Amino acid sequence: MNLLLFDSQDISGKDEITISGRRLKHLNKILRIREGDQIDVGELGGFIGKGKIIHINEREAKLDLKIHITPPEKLPLTLIIGLPRPKMLARIFRNTAAAGVRSLHIINSRKVEKSYWQSPLLQIKNIHKQFKLGLEQASDTILPDIRLWSQFKPFVEDSLPKLLSGQRCFIVQPGNYPLLPADSNIATTLALGPEGGFIPYEIEKLIDAGCTPVSLGTRVLRLESAIESVIGRQLIPSFF
Amino acid sequence: MNLLLFDSQDISGKDEITISGRRLKHLNKILRIREGDQIDVGELGGFIGKGKIIHINEREAKLDLKIHITPPEKLPLTLIIGLPRPKMLARIFRNTAAAGVRSLHIINSRKVEKSYWQSPLLQIKNIHKQFKLGLEQASDTILPDIRLWSQFKPFVEDSLPKLLSGQRCFIVQPGNYPLLPADSNIATTLALGPEGGFIPYEIEKLIDAGCTPVSLGTRVLRLESAIESVIGRQLIPSFF
Repeated sequence: MNLLLFDSQDISGKDEITISGRRLKHLNKILRIREGDQIDVGELGGFIGKGKIIHINEREAKLDLKIHITPPEKLPLTLIIGLPRPKMLARIFRNTAAAGVRSLHIINSRKVEKSYWQSPLLQIKNIHKQFKLGLEQASDTILPDIRLWSQFKPFVEDSLPKLLSGQRCFIVQPGNYPLLPADSNIATTLALGPEGGFIPYEIEKLIDAGCTPVSLGTRVLRLESAIESVIGRQLIPSFF
Repeated sequence: MNLLLFDSQDISGKDEITISGRRLKHLNKILRIREGDQIDVGELGGFIGKGKIIHINEREAKLDLKIHITPPEKLPLTLIIGLPRPKMLARIFRNTAAAGVRSLHIINSRKVEKSYWQSPLLQIKNIHKQFKLGLEQASDTILPDIRLWSQFKPFVEDSLPKLLSGQRCFIVQPGNYPLLPADSNIATTLALGPEGGFIPYEIEKLIDAGCTPVSLGTRVLRLESAIESVIGRQLIPSFF
């Protein structure tokens, strides 16, 4: 937790928040924060800045706030991901939020087990919980957009073409395709298949919608790893 | 497991292996392999090819081998990593092996908790176990080189300068540094700090040894994520 993220429920007065629960425990046990200390804070969806500890104990911490800095920019990057095994989801949500991915679309695909769609990790409150952990890691306050598409065909035929207007789109999969281009200011959408990959019919439909097959090489990577690698290739030199 | 990895202990005859344990269980339960099926196999440190199932039951599987294909090339990439919390180690070993990282140096740093060095995950047989899972994922047979350096100063003063002969080296850390260059055929060494980062003294010593500070942006990423992202930036166009 490099940033204490708070929301409207934590506000207890003018420029003042009172927190408890997981975040308090982290301040006490991990960061060993004391009265008078200053820490980085940010309002969910809003500004970041400093919070001074007015008091802290085992039950609550009260902070006096000075926040007026805009959070870091998002990458102009949209990810479309075949729903992976639920045990990967939490990390994928955390890591994409931390990296500054702007939008995330979780889609169905032939190789996705139907039962995965029942995972409680796909409930919006649980997705946001993981997103917030990622934002706390990267000192950001803006949740990525998230959409779930449990049917492939309506997504790829009706919604994807609209999503892609003015964007380039690549399908990232192992094999003899050109290497995914690195670093550009152009808004980019990347589609990654589930474990087992997209089937040929799905790739055809994605191509019809305007996506181009590219690759990270011939090695078959786990989806989690592939996601982090494609993010690494989409950093924006002008940010630096 | 996209490749059944075997070693000399599994060889039970000319062009024949007999396997049991975890890999057998995976063939039976996950891949549901039957007699007569062909699967991808590779010999640890050697060639890859096809294995035909002669028989398979709950106790063992016997395969007839045809292997004469060289494994995929490694990336010309060496990683130097500040020892992270042990719970990250297994994934880091698996993922770096899967990605084709050539060499991995785990080093001490001020921000590393001393107790981490006692982790059983740092025993060579446990490191190799994780490496093999990564090789099975990416259909490779060659273990990355691994070195552990529990003292920072002798590593950075005596060993690193020799390691770097003919290589470029970057220190990757969050902040206002130039963006880590993407994609090159030049052998590259990347140093990533532990959680909490390298301290200024350590960065100075790494610079003295020939490394240049670069960045993936201002966001503070988890070490696991940063590693995958830098690997994504070091893919070699000529491989494709």
